[in-house]
Amino acid sequence: MSAHETFAAHNDAFVSTFNQGDLKLTVPNKKLVVITCMDARVDPAAQLGIAIGDAHVLRNGGGSAREALRSILISQRLLGTREIAVFHHTDCGMFTFTNESLSSKIKSESPGDLDVAIAVDEVNFRAAYANLDESVAGDVKFLKEHPLVMKDTVVTGWVHETHTGRVKRVV
Amino acid sequence: MSAHETFAAHNDAFVSTFNQGDLKLTVPNKKLVVITCMDARVDPAAQLGIAIGDAHVLRNGGGSAREALRSILISQRLLGTREIAVFHHTDCGMFTFTNESLSSKIKSESPGDLDVAIAVDEVNFRAAYANLDESVAGDVKFLKEHPLVMKDTVVTGWVHETHTGRVKRVV
Repeated sequence: MSAHETFAAHNDAFVSTFNQGDLKLTVPNKKLVVITCMDARVDPAAQLGIAIGDAHVLRNGGGSAREALRSILISQRLLGTREIAVFHHTDCGMFTFTNESLSSKIKSESPGDLDVAIAVDEVNFRAAYANLDESVAGDVKFLKEHPLVMKDTVVTGWVHETHTGRVKRVV
Repeated sequence: MSAHETFAAHNDAFVSTFNQGDLKLTVPNKKLVVITCMDARVDPAAQLGIAIGDAHVLRNGGGSAREALRSILISQRLLGTREIAVFHHTDCGMFTFTNESLSSKIKSESPGDLDVAIAVDEVNFRAAYANLDESVAGDVKFLKEHPLVMKDTVVTGWVHETHTGRVKRVV
């Protein structure tokens, strides 16, 4: 069975208790953007107390602020957020490869496939290049110095420990 | 008060009941990737019944599969997921602007700032170009046809109605 076959039953249960249909497309209650990893052990709503309507949540492999930039600009300029919190986490997959090792792995899984070889060379996998604290600090620095991120933005950087669930502020 | 000042108290409460510290960096239980929007009314864990450890969750402005590609490749090739569910939602901010209108707005907010003008021209804001069902179908097509997405991947496309909380399969 595919996982999507379980969506309807779970969603029926959610809909039966859903009472926030008056929430419009507007400034999130906390004027907050959270950037965090796609990792299956991360759930920012539960771990940070983010309720429906509170914040924009951006997730990608590693919690890359660079990749999140487009969405941050839309969030700030059109929807009024003024704070960004960046989370990276312990035991993250982004520390297990290099751009070169992952490119080589994908090419080796489709030997002789020119479409694959060409396409994979166009991807920057954004492998982690620093330790965890430095990785967080680097993303915060990127946001604070970027000419398109609004000057009055509060930017903080955090590490999430996956084995305890605890978050700790780095910058 | 900044929103981040509330993280510690919420996180203390989460940590006090957290008992899943044995979850390693491994294949998510459902071998599933969910792609959805950053919108504050979206909470895939609650709305789809995704527990900690179940799935990789990718979120960006609009739920763009193209922007999520890098993370999908890491998820599939290094962490073993084999299914992708794409969600876009009603009343989405991506339908309220064009690339040109948002670029012009940002430039007008920093008149004469050359750094801003240069930087904004490098951003593709990925404004929605189709109706909601077509937008979902377009992202599913992109994933099914992409040479780097694994051939045996189950890809489904869904619309999330923000005023009811209900999800409906499109493709």
